[in-house]
Amino acid sequence: MGRLTVRRPVLRVRPGSPPRHRPDTLVVEEPLEIRVDGNPLAVTMRTPGHDIELALGFLVSEGLVRDASDVKAARYCSDVVDGADDNVVDVTVVPAVKEHVQHLVRNVTITSACGVCGRTSLDTVRTGSPYDITSDPVTTTTQLLATLPETLRSRQNVFERTGGLHAVGVFTPGGELIVLREDVGRHNAFDKVVGWALQQSSLPLSGLLALVSGRASFELVQKAALAGLPVLAAVSAPSTLAVDLADEVGMTLVGFLRGESMNIYTQAQRVVALG
Amino acid sequence: MGRLTVRRPVLRVRPGSPPRHRPDTLVVEEPLEIRVDGNPLAVTMRTPGHDIELALGFLVSEGLVRDASDVKAARYCSDVVDGADDNVVDVTVVPAVKEHVQHLVRNVTITSACGVCGRTSLDTVRTGSPYDITSDPVTTTTQLLATLPETLRSRQNVFERTGGLHAVGVFTPGGELIVLREDVGRHNAFDKVVGWALQQSSLPLSGLLALVSGRASFELVQKAALAGLPVLAAVSAPSTLAVDLADEVGMTLVGFLRGESMNIYTQAQRVVALG
Repeated sequence: MGRLTVRRPVLRVRPGSPPRHRPDTLVVEEPLEIRVDGNPLAVTMRTPGHDIELALGFLVSEGLVRDASDVKAARYCSDVVDGADDNVVDVTVVPAVKEHVQHLVRNVTITSACGVCGRTSLDTVRTGSPYDITSDPVTTTTQLLATLPETLRSRQNVFERTGGLHAVGVFTPGGELIVLREDVGRHNAFDKVVGWALQQSSLPLSGLLALVSGRASFELVQKAALAGLPVLAAVSAPSTLAVDLADEVGMTLVGFLRGESMNIYTQAQRVVALG
Repeated sequence: MGRLTVRRPVLRVRPGSPPRHRPDTLVVEEPLEIRVDGNPLAVTMRTPGHDIELALGFLVSEGLVRDASDVKAARYCSDVVDGADDNVVDVTVVPAVKEHVQHLVRNVTITSACGVCGRTSLDTVRTGSPYDITSDPVTTTTQLLATLPETLRSRQNVFERTGGLHAVGVFTPGGELIVLREDVGRHNAFDKVVGWALQQSSLPLSGLLALVSGRASFELVQKAALAGLPVLAAVSAPSTLAVDLADEVGMTLVGFLRGESMNIYTQAQRVVALG
């Protein structure tokens, strides 16, 4: 179970005591490339472990495979260059299934609404941000960050009635909510916010803060990076890859934002007046 | 905001009072097809509303569009046959972006690890189940269902440490957990369970119950249907399309399973001894 979690340094902020640098346990998120007979079929962001099962179950869920007799072998690829070789699984299938896969490949052209779903090889997972987020001079405080979840929640009309929606809000450094979108899919809620910004001709979203109602995945950090957001806060946990990407692009990533408590994973210098 | 939620009949089970048929408010989930210059690019399961923003933000997140000047127009398609015409958005882009899209289409071959992401047209979203779930004679009780979340939670090692994982468990009608998988992506956790079943030559998962730690989306019901599961329970809310699909394939769908409380959305006859 070792690779399911890793420990990373984090700045822990708790009411009544000074912020402390502490290791925090994060769930590992890494891309898995699924190949059929050597041909890349899909990439999914997953927690490592049970990867052969994941590849096989994916093929069942796609309607390509029905039982064990459809599969000749499933194994990690050992010939992968420039990548961890336990992040690629190849499934060898019987000829009838192979035809189905080829049919599917011919008839489905592209990608998905997820940030990474639909990518077929690992090197296409990361899309560089066109904006220099590192240089964004915006700052905030733990006190201001603490107000954001309640502001978001109080404006989430649909969630109150169904309990079924994710929300994304964008705030000014003063804590004013300037746009809120809700959706069953958190990636959709984020895309709606970004599309709103595009229509307002306000991309990049420099100098602003965003809050997501759930966890911070790699995908959401990537969407935030492509929109030029310098500060992303989440009510729940981030994944390892979310933290890695935020660090890489110079984004401040805050997790477990609950009341006056929060963990600051990257670029903590933007959060001032901590003491 | 009307179409963001709908009211559906549900059998509400609450401790200390007889089960009652009541309307319940569900969040709407419907597929949106995103086209660029008339060509299908992606389908995402979303909550209707702000669809133009969603399509534009998706193009930004894919790195295809950077600002409003890249987009000539974005509108609902009015020429869609066999589908709600507010479930298709077409974005007309400037020539430079068009080239990028064509490049992307040529280089990305297929789909994703989500049940529907990567589909490029609405009619490919639903994959029929190869199993006759309607005829599955398994029954359960509210008392037994009430035990499942605690069993799942007590075995979720990683969640306890990180707060960041989804879990899927499969149980016998007696409440025994036979497989549990965790992942940052709930679709991955479900695929891992299905892949495990395939390796055990135990597909379809007839006569068994599954519990998911979060919400029940269309995608998860579809994966359950393709694995032949007759009963799917979720700790949180289902979406409209999840309920529709469960009903269509004859699956019992339980939501908001918390202690002795739950909502039974479809095929309630499998849940006996309710009184």
